[in-house]
Amino acid sequence: SVPATPVEGSVALAVVPGDGIGPEVTAEALKVLEVAAPAGVKFEQTRYDLGAERYLATQEVLPDSVLAEIRQSDAILLGAVGGKPNDPNLPPGILERGLLLRLRFELDHYVNLRPSRIYPGAVSPLSTEVLSKGEVDFVVVREGTEGPYTGNGGALRVGTPAEVATEVSVNTAYGVERVIRDAFARAQRRPRKKLTLVHKTNVLVNAGSLWWRLFEEVATEFPDVTTDYCHIDAVMIYLATDPQRFDVIVTDNLFGDIVTDLAAAITGGIGLAASGNVNPDRTAPSMFEPVHGSAPDIAGQLIADPTAAILSGALLLDHLGHPDAAARIEAAVIADLAARTPGSTRSTPEVGDAIAARVAG
Amino acid sequence: SVPATPVEGSVALAVVPGDGIGPEVTAEALKVLEVAAPAGVKFEQTRYDLGAERYLATQEVLPDSVLAEIRQSDAILLGAVGGKPNDPNLPPGILERGLLLRLRFELDHYVNLRPSRIYPGAVSPLSTEVLSKGEVDFVVVREGTEGPYTGNGGALRVGTPAEVATEVSVNTAYGVERVIRDAFARAQRRPRKKLTLVHKTNVLVNAGSLWWRLFEEVATEFPDVTTDYCHIDAVMIYLATDPQRFDVIVTDNLFGDIVTDLAAAITGGIGLAASGNVNPDRTAPSMFEPVHGSAPDIAGQLIADPTAAILSGALLLDHLGHPDAAARIEAAVIADLAARTPGSTRSTPEVGDAIAARVAG
Ligand SMILES: CC(C)[C@H](C(=O)O)[C@@H](O)C(=O)O
Ligand SMILES: CC(C)[C@H](C(=O)O)[C@@H](O)C(=O)O
Repeated sequence: SVPATPVEGSVALAVVPGDGIGPEVTAEALKVLEVAAPAGVKFEQTRYDLGAERYLATQEVLPDSVLAEIRQSDAILLGAVGGKPNDPNLPPGILERGLLLRLRFELDHYVNLRPSRIYPGAVSPLSTEVLSKGEVDFVVVREGTEGPYTGNGGALRVGTPAEVATEVSVNTAYGVERVIRDAFARAQRRPRKKLTLVHKTNVLVNAGSLWWRLFEEVATEFPDVTTDYCHIDAVMIYLATDPQRFDVIVTDNLFGDIVTDLAAAITGGIGLAASGNVNPDRTAPSMFEPVHGSAPDIAGQLIADPTAAILSGALLLDHLGHPDAAARIEAAVIADLAARTPGSTRSTPEVGDAIAARVAG
Repeated sequence: SVPATPVEGSVALAVVPGDGIGPEVTAEALKVLEVAAPAGVKFEQTRYDLGAERYLATQEVLPDSVLAEIRQSDAILLGAVGGKPNDPNLPPGILERGLLLRLRFELDHYVNLRPSRIYPGAVSPLSTEVLSKGEVDFVVVREGTEGPYTGNGGALRVGTPAEVATEVSVNTAYGVERVIRDAFARAQRRPRKKLTLVHKTNVLVNAGSLWWRLFEEVATEFPDVTTDYCHIDAVMIYLATDPQRFDVIVTDNLFGDIVTDLAAAITGGIGLAASGNVNPDRTAPSMFEPVHGSAPDIAGQLIADPTAAILSGALLLDHLGHPDAAARIEAAVIADLAARTPGSTRSTPEVGDAIAARVAG
């Protein structure tokens, strides 16, 4: 990842609020973004109504013309997409593959970035014994354009007792090396400078060998970064009992999906977990979104926590070359979290207002 | 799974102590098994020296003649196999695929059974707030003969910038239906009668659709079992924040590997986690082993906790049709755990002796 040249002046921001609580949390993220934007940066928003609602009304998921427009933007802010669970009119995978994953693949978001930090005041499900061992502050660099997410595989004799269904994890030297190099660069910029490769090399020997070899190879270019390897199953144990051991984790698309939800859970829940779908080469806009879904069960009540969306806005500013503005948002969130009183129930806009006010200073 | 006809008289037990702490914990499991065996059951042990040590000395992993002998046994007790990490003479996958997985596949261990219960006295890394919500007691039924564990896939242009490596998850109606049916039967025998399917149907649409359809189909045969579905990533969150929600989980081979290590971690660590590689149709012997590995770093010191191996012995007795004897072992373990004082350091044989004494009564 190259050091970011700051994007100044008018910034074309594609906004995809989505479904359920998506629009509610996106409104707060935008509120905070506006306040945090450095002098000289002006967000020009264009909204795109994509998601379950549009699909159910029009059968459209992501029209090519919309994708072409979004591709011209400088960055994308996404809320959350997804309809009611088990809606027979919305088969599993339609929105995920047709919209979310299509954007990640088309815009070459090969770095799926998920910072995982236990902020003071956040409620972790881990015991005080585990938490007292030290600060938890790591980043997962999840590969975003390969692995079992490629839509390779298929099915034969569907619906018969002889059905065979396959899923193919595709891993290329091209795709693996670039994400590993990005992860090393990120590790090098952090105080602890430690990178852990997560895979399952003892079973997935073809992909495992490719990841392992490229990890070792790229490591020689970053002699000051300490390296480590963990099987995906062992990571489960470490995240539950010793999350302090991690600094930067690099892993494949599916393992990354799994690890980051556990990371979100132990660091205080998906109400706080932000993510960036990053194209480090800037050949297309990057996309920022909370890890959580559209939560149709609580939509419309304005009770969703917008913090994850707001922190996704910080990642967006950082990616655009404005780390100071990003740090101001993060500091405001930390202060807000520390001031939260258990049991207090602020509405979604109240949380957004409070954080925006702290950013404004 | 058919109700077990008790195996009486002389029981041929294949014992694979393995490497590192494997032999240490296996000795204790055998000690307890002998004491717990019901009158009329006599274990005739045959030992097989398989594992890293044998491989490094002879390049043999699992000779066909040994497999043929083991196949004739009534059950297999395995300690743990595996050498020092990163031993250049022991490439990743050799023992795992050539020994452990080969046994599972050759002996058609399609039900990989992993009970997950927080016993009183066990040290969970979860907060008291999470634990106070209620008892944690669930079983994971992990498919054992398909998925990404089949060794399908390969690599092209290895070592070049154009390398492509694939891993293929193979799922058949035959393989998926039988494990789902087994899981429903197990759920039906438990008080809560609830079964959760875990997959990633929104991304792995071919395999996901097969698992989902067969789950729905088999469910109609078990109308008294409540069903539920969770994506693998959401399961991470639930296991960390609300593990009480699970009763029986059924899932594929790789998701099962991941979920059961997290389950082991939250229920008190892999020092306690037992597993059975079960052939419910009894066309070949089933194999019982602790979830933990050979832990070469602590081998030889007799400090490993043999509880997981001892509980694996209980699963073995249960599988052989002796649930009362199995329950006696579990009760002895529960009593031993409750009596453990933090910081006390009993040796491996001391723990085995204590549990054996409680079983003897
Ligand atoms: C919704 C789904 C396709 C997505 C994924 O699996 O990547 C989500 O779980 C995530 O982590 O962003
Ligand atoms: C050692 C390895 C092949 C094995 C697996 O992945 O199944 C282990 O992790 C397990 O869970 O029994």
